[in-house]
Amino acid sequence: LTSGPPVTDLNADLGESFGTWRLGDDAAMMAVITSANIACGFHAGDPLTLRRACALAAERAVAIGAQVSYRDLAGFGRREMDVPAAELTAELLYQIAALDGLARVEGSRVRYVKPHGALYHRVARDQVQAAALVTAIASYDATLPLLTRPGCVAARLAEARGLTVIGEAFADRGYNDDGTLVPRSEPGAVRTDPAEVADRAVAIATRGEVESANGRPVQIKARSICVHSDTAGAVTLARAIRRGLAKAGVRLAPFA
Amino acid sequence: LTSGPPVTDLNADLGESFGTWRLGDDAAMMAVITSANIACGFHAGDPLTLRRACALAAERAVAIGAQVSYRDLAGFGRREMDVPAAELTAELLYQIAALDGLARVEGSRVRYVKPHGALYHRVARDQVQAAALVTAIASYDATLPLLTRPGCVAARLAEARGLTVIGEAFADRGYNDDGTLVPRSEPGAVRTDPAEVADRAVAIATRGEVESANGRPVQIKARSICVHSDTAGAVTLARAIRRGLAKAGVRLAPFA
Amino acid sequence: LTSGPPVTDLNADLGESFGTWRLGDDAAMMAVITSANIACGFHAGDPLTLRRACALAAERAVAIGAQVSYRDLAGFGRREMDVPAAELTAELLYQIAALDGLARVEGSRVRYVKPHGALYHRVARDQVQAAALVTAIASYDATLPLLTRPGCVAARLAEARGLTVIGEAFADRGYNDDGTLVPRSEPGAVRTDPAEVADRAVAIATRGEVESANGRPVQIKARSICVHSDTAGAVTLARAIRRGLAKAGVRLAPFA
Amino acid sequence: LTSGPPVTDLNADLGESFGTWRLGDDAAMMAVITSANIACGFHAGDPLTLRRACALAAERAVAIGAQVSYRDLAGFGRREMDVPAAELTAELLYQIAALDGLARVEGSRVRYVKPHGALYHRVARDQVQAAALVTAIASYDATLPLLTRPGCVAARLAEARGLTVIGEAFADRGYNDDGTLVPRSEPGAVRTDPAEVADRAVAIATRGEVESANGRPVQIKARSICVHSDTAGAVTLARAIRRGLAKAGVRLAPFA
Repeated sequence: LTSGPPVTDLNADLGESFGTWRLGDDAAMMAVITSANIACGFHAGDPLTLRRACALAAERAVAIGAQVSYRDLAGFGRREMDVPAAELTAELLYQIAALDGLARVEGSRVRYVKPHGALYHRVARDQVQAAALVTAIASYDATLPLLTRPGCVAARLAEARGLTVIGEAFADRGYNDDGTLVPRSEPGAVRTDPAEVADRAVAIATRGEVESANGRPVQIKARSICVHSDTAGAVTLARAIRRGLAKAGVRLAPFA
Repeated sequence: LTSGPPVTDLNADLGESFGTWRLGDDAAMMAVITSANIACGFHAGDPLTLRRACALAAERAVAIGAQVSYRDLAGFGRREMDVPAAELTAELLYQIAALDGLARVEGSRVRYVKPHGALYHRVARDQVQAAALVTAIASYDATLPLLTRPGCVAARLAEARGLTVIGEAFADRGYNDDGTLVPRSEPGAVRTDPAEVADRAVAIATRGEVESANGRPVQIKARSICVHSDTAGAVTLARAIRRGLAKAGVRLAPFA
Repeated sequence: LTSGPPVTDLNADLGESFGTWRLGDDAAMMAVITSANIACGFHAGDPLTLRRACALAAERAVAIGAQVSYRDLAGFGRREMDVPAAELTAELLYQIAALDGLARVEGSRVRYVKPHGALYHRVARDQVQAAALVTAIASYDATLPLLTRPGCVAARLAEARGLTVIGEAFADRGYNDDGTLVPRSEPGAVRTDPAEVADRAVAIATRGEVESANGRPVQIKARSICVHSDTAGAVTLARAIRRGLAKAGVRLAPFA
Repeated sequence: LTSGPPVTDLNADLGESFGTWRLGDDAAMMAVITSANIACGFHAGDPLTLRRACALAAERAVAIGAQVSYRDLAGFGRREMDVPAAELTAELLYQIAALDGLARVEGSRVRYVKPHGALYHRVARDQVQAAALVTAIASYDATLPLLTRPGCVAARLAEARGLTVIGEAFADRGYNDDGTLVPRSEPGAVRTDPAEVADRAVAIATRGEVESANGRPVQIKARSICVHSDTAGAVTLARAIRRGLAKAGVRLAPFA
């Protein structure tokens, strides 16, 4: 999409509170983003929290994505699990359908699927689990796009299956020359300066590239930019990105 | 329905295994009943178990009902819980939608809703929780019938809201003169003789009545007969009922 | 204890985070209180959170209490549940023992038991569940005191069984003339002015009384004052109470 | 122990029911074995089930082991999880302590620790998780032996830390020449003939060896023989082993 029109999408993880425990500011973030990856109850999100997130998204015309996960509330879905394929597919179907029902009751629909946490990373390299994910989406609704890292195993399997794949980039993360992310343990992995992060978002949206840790331009085909939602300054950073994109003439619109 | 045609429905609770733990014989029971109250994951039923139960039901043209429950795996949904209305409605929507998604993937749909265990008993007398259930059904799909005890609080609220209510009776339970069930702690509460239970089913289906513990006829408007599924002789008893009904010229058909 | 020496205990609920979700500021609160009601994993508290809370308590010589609960993470233990007595006793033993193990590894011990949320209120009036709690404590270690509302059903059963009962009062809650709490739905139920709350704490600790909503003195036999820990200004309020007590010459010491 | 006296231990997994779901026959098995690996609630075992298993063990003078696991009821602890070390240690401490409390209330104690399922296999090769397990045992009670596969990573780390390690063998599993188990996917992996399995148990207990799939003798230093408990003929097989050992003059005694 480097030669495409200056349009992008901002996605963030929402609906990640659970019962009495609050996480993130769904209402504030919903005013900034265009696509909401709403949890489905397996790593976070009790049903009332999910319903409210769907209602907020519907009000704001924010696209709802099913942020599916391993069944792991205690680990917030951040621990890889060796779930057999048939079981994983059923778990993912269950989650997509549950959220879709809540979304429909609030006048919207699940418009795409994004794997969460450890599942996101696992399906990026594991054929079996990636296939389980692709099968779940294709079985539930083959028109639902998969939002993930461009070119990963899940993306390739999804494309081979005829699904739409939407690539995403991270404006606040450092990139290596080969397009992979700088590990969080290394310096420059996470950028927190709003002006810099906004500039990187503009570069991704308008030129399809981002400057690597070595100062080289890296091509990134990303129709969506992921904004983190669970850190202290998350809303501030997301707003800076949104303003920076607007100033640069980039139109914000959901991909779905 | 006492004057109606000799047609009835047999419903049973299925999909109640969880992970490695098995409960009931879904495949055998599915060959006997016409409506399957399939668990939704809150009191029982991991997603793969639920999906398989939906597939069996679809194969056999057995109607799928969402057997919704409190969130209580450890107590199998048998302990009443004071869940606030908005939370309960969201939990029920989540469950109905999740099962509906699995049913659709297997070529069927959720056709009705039946509350499970402690929720079944609570909504039979508690206005607030009954209203929460009725709201969930009406919001999700107002054409879905509610399967429950005729005349209870939930049944009345559902009818007032314009929902269809399907009454059920128990061929293997003793009844008092006023149509309530003989408590399990009393003699005659549970009948286990297949011939007797089959006779009682025929009486319910053809004459809309059952003999009380005192030997008096009790009127029961029941379009469906509930068959227990988790006891040792459950399948044997269900088969006896089915044969008895067939011999008496009662047609078996799902109500939904 | 109205005629006793000016000594009191400050207790608060801690260890109530779960996985990624944070609740309260355990480290700050531990510097203020003398007894920590540490969650046991059933309504809140993953094992690492609990272990760290025990370590903080051990460092500060704060007494550790097992804050036992129904098994209800989604409802934070705030929903009454009809758990049969034998099951409840086993669940409570499990929780006390688990926390005691973590406490011992950190150089301390569980010194008392306090029921949480809906269980606290249920055992205050329900003979069966109160007896289940008392049996759990007596079986585990009959020297462990029960911290609860003076005179409630659980307190009376515990005393009859030979257990020590420690009464607690609430400096930030309004009291009726008969010593019961003003319901949260009524005006004056919760006091938030630090100076006023500190004064009430002093009245409880020195004179064994608190002014009722009608301005009458109410007798309260409370060896411990409960400080809320999960509200915004919780630490500030707790510090005000501590300072107020110190200024009034009240010595702060754990009861256990 | 090949030159040792003819004494061995029989261990099996018990306490693996959960709520309404039953698994295995704890009472029957307890009459056959000398050591019970009792679940701790994380992969199986509600507190009442665990308490009853402890009571049965205490009655029969069967040694109680804490069968610790990942937190994974839905997967029965059979799925490897990337749990960080500090978190895993706290989870294991929590489990050991909870079971120990129930055991003490029933007049016994936890006498050893055995990891369950995926954790058993993971700590056999993963330094980090093995160290987390060893730390948990050493912190809780450094006199508790670890029951596991001889020579695996966890066994070596435990020995280096000064813990006692008890090796176990499987009389009903095929062995390769190098002492590893024949994978379940291959022929001869599982033996079900009671006479043959009993003979193999005798060979392990008296000569410290077992015949490999190639007919060669394999040395096995095993003070305990593991008997499976969750299969159909489990109790029958366990009884055959016990009788076979008795006939061969092998004394049965817990190692702990």
